[in-house]
Amino acid sequence: MDAKVNLAEKFATFSEHWSPRIIASYNDNDVRIVKVEGEFVWHSHPETDDFFLVVEGELDIELRDRTVTLGPGELFVVPRGVEHRPVARRGEARLLVIEPAGTPNTGDAATATAAVRA
Amino acid sequence: MDAKVNLAEKFATFSEHWSPRIIASYNDNDVRIVKVEGEFVWHSHPETDDFFLVVEGELDIELRDRTVTLGPGELFVVPRGVEHRPVARRGEARLLVIEPAGTPNTGDAATATAAVRA
Repeated sequence: MDAKVNLAEKFATFSEHWSPRIIASYNDNDVRIVKVEGEFVWHSHPETDDFFLVVEGELDIELRDRTVTLGPGELFVVPRGVEHRPVARRGEARLLVIEPAGTPNTGDAATATAAVRA
Repeated sequence: MDAKVNLAEKFATFSEHWSPRIIASYNDNDVRIVKVEGEFVWHSHPETDDFFLVVEGELDIELRDRTVTLGPGELFVVPRGVEHRPVARRGEARLLVIEPAGTPNTGDAATATAAVRA
């Protein structure tokens, strides 16, 4: 993985929602992109923060006590252990996400959609 | 640091080049933004990969054997230990960079410009 990554080109390679693609590695982390629409499940990651950057569209990150709404060029880090539910209510959103390699997107390997290389 | 971060708003808070600002923390990493123009110094980070995402403008990441040119929406991870020189030859470029907290931007604390909170 020694080439540059063009986000728009990588997003063009798939259309499934909530199905992350690994586009680069940074130390022991996956750099992932994902297209989302509608509601994900409530979950948390006990061992890791969860980095979200919106590339296109709009994402609500629902927390138990408030909602963080992100548009293009906005980012938010969900602290480890904090329950959250990503929701895209106003059409598709395109996200760049960073998580330690192997982190299940639902916080639970049994229900996760495994990230694959783009 | 529990609020969302708008990259454009954060970039508007400073004008110095090669002077990184910390805008978020992700696990033990700093998420930094930096405005660059002209040539940086050749350096490497023996202990960490170096994540670059171009938000605006154009950046050449010179490696000893080739140059990786990034435009907006393009990213590249310089592997740990690999000598590189970031150069913005065609006007200012605005970057999002991720590095372990405390990583000197020059690879050497003696010559580094310390990252400060935006």
